[in-house]
Amino acid sequence: MRVALVTVGDELLSGDTVNTNAAWLSEKLTDRGVSVERVTTVPDDVADIARVVNEYRAEHDAVIVTGGLGPTHDDVTMAGVAAAVGRDLEPHAEAREWLTGEGGYSADGLVDGTTDLPARARMLPNSEGVAPGAVVEGIYVLPGVPSEMKAMFEQVAEEFSGTETFTTVVDVDEPESELVDRLAEVQRKFDVTVGSYPGDSVRVKFTATDESVVEEAAAWLTSKVDLVDGA
Amino acid sequence: MRVALVTVGDELLSGDTVNTNAAWLSEKLTDRGVSVERVTTVPDDVADIARVVNEYRAEHDAVIVTGGLGPTHDDVTMAGVAAAVGRDLEPHAEAREWLTGEGGYSADGLVDGTTDLPARARMLPNSEGVAPGAVVEGIYVLPGVPSEMKAMFEQVAEEFSGTETFTTVVDVDEPESELVDRLAEVQRKFDVTVGSYPGDSVRVKFTATDESVVEEAAAWLTSKVDLVDGA
Repeated sequence: MRVALVTVGDELLSGDTVNTNAAWLSEKLTDRGVSVERVTTVPDDVADIARVVNEYRAEHDAVIVTGGLGPTHDDVTMAGVAAAVGRDLEPHAEAREWLTGEGGYSADGLVDGTTDLPARARMLPNSEGVAPGAVVEGIYVLPGVPSEMKAMFEQVAEEFSGTETFTTVVDVDEPESELVDRLAEVQRKFDVTVGSYPGDSVRVKFTATDESVVEEAAAWLTSKVDLVDGA
Repeated sequence: MRVALVTVGDELLSGDTVNTNAAWLSEKLTDRGVSVERVTTVPDDVADIARVVNEYRAEHDAVIVTGGLGPTHDDVTMAGVAAAVGRDLEPHAEAREWLTGEGGYSADGLVDGTTDLPARARMLPNSEGVAPGAVVEGIYVLPGVPSEMKAMFEQVAEEFSGTETFTTVVDVDEPESELVDRLAEVQRKFDVTVGSYPGDSVRVKFTATDESVVEEAAAWLTSKVDLVDGA
């Protein structure tokens, strides 16, 4: 399963907020064997959201959109998603029912627009806040507030699945530039994906669908390099 | 000036790494009055990088690409950027000169590929690491290691400029849903961009090119809401 994430918000594009939602979702999806192929941040703008969501849904099995839900003027994500799929944005009866029932809000207190979702979308209740989420044509629309986003994702997590992969890391105490030949060799010898991430040391990460293969690859490299002390 | 950021790396798409580079660059660019319009993460894949960079350079004044520089097999960003602009990837004489001179590396120690840049690119020396950066056709290619990326960006920061904007925030101790009418009113009364970001409280952010306007808008809202204690 191939997925793209679209994170909506001017506060992300101005650097006011670090995009921890994207990292959290990416990790959850990767753990489920799903391949995350794009993460894109767009402004609070209906046309930008519609365009990117529409492009990505054509090329992925699902698109997860976070941020920009709610009744204020800068919350335009539902309008953008509705435009992407060519549907009207309209009050969603089930969303109102949930909010005024289990949600515990009074009908009088609900601001206009709170329950507006793309027509015929599946509503996702928000156990941690007001704004409901939605699923429509493989597009999952979640809030931007991390606690709300996480709780809502867990409701639909089982709809995301793929081939389980296994990962092993080896922390190497040599400059990355000196490892080039050995990294090329380990990739030739074993059916693994090899990533190398330089920092104070070099973290080499092996990924494969066969657990024994990543272990064999890691053991081979371990025998050929200087390891970080204590690793 | 309108800019897009492309952050390259499988480790970002698996959630292993939080994209702090994007937040840092976005903040620096916003402070310079530059509008950041997209931040997109793509895998370590030549075709993906080439496609996204090519699309974004057509629509923005500049594209900044970070990550995936270096000589190992998963460092393919320079090849992707070269493909985006239809140039060969070739050893860059000035990069070799810098590395073996000011950089302090021995010519024998340089791994093949270290100095490969898109043909006729401007080389950006890496004061904190080995891999050089490049500028070609409005595309700025920087390393992914944060210390290296930051130092290299500072070399070119003055090439990014726009209209200075001013920002004021008001932290409101009311539910966002109750603020809808006042937020709409403040936006009607003043020539400002209004963002509202709910968390424990609601942070309302005013942005405009005229400092006095953001202050007047903030003063107006401040007089109409319950403020967070101590704010």
